[in-house]
Amino acid sequence: MDAEFYLDVALIHYPVVNRNQEIIGSAVTNLDLHDIARAGKTFGVSTYWVVTPYPQQQELAAGIVGHWTEGYGGTVNPDRAAALSIIRIKSTLDGVIADMVLQYGRRPKIIATSASRQEKRISYADLRFELKQRTPILLLLGTAWGMAPEVMDQADAILPPILGSGAFNHLSVRSAASILLDRLLGSREDAA
Amino acid sequence: MDAEFYLDVALIHYPVVNRNQEIIGSAVTNLDLHDIARAGKTFGVSTYWVVTPYPQQQELAAGIVGHWTEGYGGTVNPDRAAALSIIRIKSTLDGVIADMVLQYGRRPKIIATSASRQEKRISYADLRFELKQRTPILLLLGTAWGMAPEVMDQADAILPPILGSGAFNHLSVRSAASILLDRLLGSREDAA
Repeated sequence: MDAEFYLDVALIHYPVVNRNQEIIGSAVTNLDLHDIARAGKTFGVSTYWVVTPYPQQQELAAGIVGHWTEGYGGTVNPDRAAALSIIRIKSTLDGVIADMVLQYGRRPKIIATSASRQEKRISYADLRFELKQRTPILLLLGTAWGMAPEVMDQADAILPPILGSGAFNHLSVRSAASILLDRLLGSREDAA
Repeated sequence: MDAEFYLDVALIHYPVVNRNQEIIGSAVTNLDLHDIARAGKTFGVSTYWVVTPYPQQQELAAGIVGHWTEGYGGTVNPDRAAALSIIRIKSTLDGVIADMVLQYGRRPKIIATSASRQEKRISYADLRFELKQRTPILLLLGTAWGMAPEVMDQADAILPPILGSGAFNHLSVRSAASILLDRLLGSREDAA
């Protein structure tokens, strides 16, 4: 409880939207678990919450995590064990928030991300300042075509979308998570 | 030939090293093609070179790219078609360089990346400056445990490793590529 900052990340598999903006649940993927856990561990994320209400998907995620943290995978690749050990599986966002309240003694500030511009914006600089103040932060990442409106409504603020050089911005959630964490926590000196 | 900058990326599958620093060839993966193409397209990369000398691996990569650019995948997901259309498959790094010489009229500046600190460093700021000067740049990314020394020796300069908050830095090549492109080409205004 005496880290330099308190940042958790939640990858939301339900409720998210499909390309027609209909509410769906998406499937847990092996690569989302590995890549975001490795980036999270690199940048100092406390817990990487995998949020899905489907028992079979929870079992799949737990099986992958178990293989790498307690099973054969972890013995041949201890770095991967360290990365995947930050994963916890939860049925709902409310459950994540309740656990964070227990851990940090107060409700985290909930920061959403989106590929399009939204209201309630917070800049990366302001969020870096909040992290320095040791405000517990929960960063929400969506799968499929993004988080459902009811999830976005729970956010206290939303980061600006990651833009490149043109109109095309269809990053994978793995790429977006990596860039967000680097912008918030990466060594400013080295990146200069 | 009148873009604002000229940046190509090459993902090297041979020669790379395994955990024991032995020279190996790694397998092409579907996710490396998709994620790095999507990040490349977002940030304005001209060509994403997939470098492998193995004919079967070249066919696998070509099959995936074809499905999404000319086949069924592209019709249901034109954004993915746009992303994967920047991929070209090549047997060797020398072949990539030869093609770039033909295209740009001069040898590109070759910039390697590494998870550890190396000699011949170039800062992100200096490389951003080179891009603004429209120097053709080829950014090398390694698979497995990193590029073999003979590849690193071909680089004109090497970017500093991406560091997080602690000693752990085991990013996937997909995460590293995304962060590198954001540091070099992402909107500085939005990231502030």
